[in-house]
Amino acid sequence: MARPLSPKLSPSIIAQAALDAVDHDGEFTIQGIAKKLKVSPSSLYNHIDSKADVIELMRGQVMGRMDLSGVDSESADWAGSLRIIALHYRNAYALNPRLLPLVTAYSVRDATTIGMYNLMAQTLRTAGFDSTRQLEIITVIDNFVLGSALDAGAPDNVWAPGEAASPELRAALDAGLGAPDRAQKSFEFGLGLLLEGLAREAEVLG
Amino acid sequence: MARPLSPKLSPSIIAQAALDAVDHDGEFTIQGIAKKLKVSPSSLYNHIDSKADVIELMRGQVMGRMDLSGVDSESADWAGSLRIIALHYRNAYALNPRLLPLVTAYSVRDATTIGMYNLMAQTLRTAGFDSTRQLEIITVIDNFVLGSALDAGAPDNVWAPGEAASPELRAALDAGLGAPDRAQKSFEFGLGLLLEGLAREAEVLG
Repeated sequence: MARPLSPKLSPSIIAQAALDAVDHDGEFTIQGIAKKLKVSPSSLYNHIDSKADVIELMRGQVMGRMDLSGVDSESADWAGSLRIIALHYRNAYALNPRLLPLVTAYSVRDATTIGMYNLMAQTLRTAGFDSTRQLEIITVIDNFVLGSALDAGAPDNVWAPGEAASPELRAALDAGLGAPDRAQKSFEFGLGLLLEGLAREAEVLG
Repeated sequence: MARPLSPKLSPSIIAQAALDAVDHDGEFTIQGIAKKLKVSPSSLYNHIDSKADVIELMRGQVMGRMDLSGVDSESADWAGSLRIIALHYRNAYALNPRLLPLVTAYSVRDATTIGMYNLMAQTLRTAGFDSTRQLEIITVIDNFVLGSALDAGAPDNVWAPGEAASPELRAALDAGLGAPDRAQKSFEFGLGLLLEGLAREAEVLG
């Protein structure tokens, strides 16, 4: 007798089911994923050992959206390389902002993600930063990118302060709020500030 | 006949119950809050109209942890004022990182939060930035602060790359990972880069 058809399980299928749950509920359960994929929890456990494993699968799924094949970590334009990495990284997480507090609560083990950090560390070494500074810079870029990914998913009217706004805040909101590229432009402005600051520091080192 | 005792409802009590749920589950429901507080959903609706209202209460609860009474928005040391605001803002959200994707998905209406943005806009006006730039800078600081709040809640071993790490990444992790003030130091380093960049721009304006 043929067994009933069930979706073939793969890391990517499990990751996507978990991502769908996180997008909707802010959380996932192994049981919920099994139910959604119409498989038994025990068959899921052929692919994963723990909740942490599912988090790594989701991290890999999101980071797999990045195409960093054009980034040359040995290029003299190391700031340009970092810019490209940061842009891709932000765009990848902008699609799943609710995943952020989950991935930041677990140690990074996913190989795709580590691949990006390898690229960042190598690029920063090319720039002349020592190991301690490399990790600080990686963390700063991480923080700015992930906060910007949250902002990318914000509603058009990020602020709706009503009468509570001061005249200065009101003027700032009137000047910039609602522009279709508001989040993108602010991200690029802030990234530019960070990279210019790093370039000045690298100059002193060089 | 005396009515049965029930916790007196207040915006702060409702906010704290919702925050507890978000910390634990990544989400909250009106029904869940009512159950936790042992009141009927309808008695909650005497205080709030919608899920968005509860989000604003949580935002106000978190931002109410900030003490910005010492910040002078007219001070010539506007960068110092922004630094203090950013430090408090990051520390406030570091305690509830799972709230971040919820608050960034809704328009800011909470008066305490708007008070901080008023202070930022006024401080940036003192620095000489025009309204458009003020909103971009506010957004950049927001993004960096909220990403850093996520990082503040990360485990000590943020990265556990195993064999996937390149020698450069491995050296960077060995140099900086596990230091008790890792997240705080990186936050202050990045904030310094941003503020120095803004100071240079303000000099050109002035």
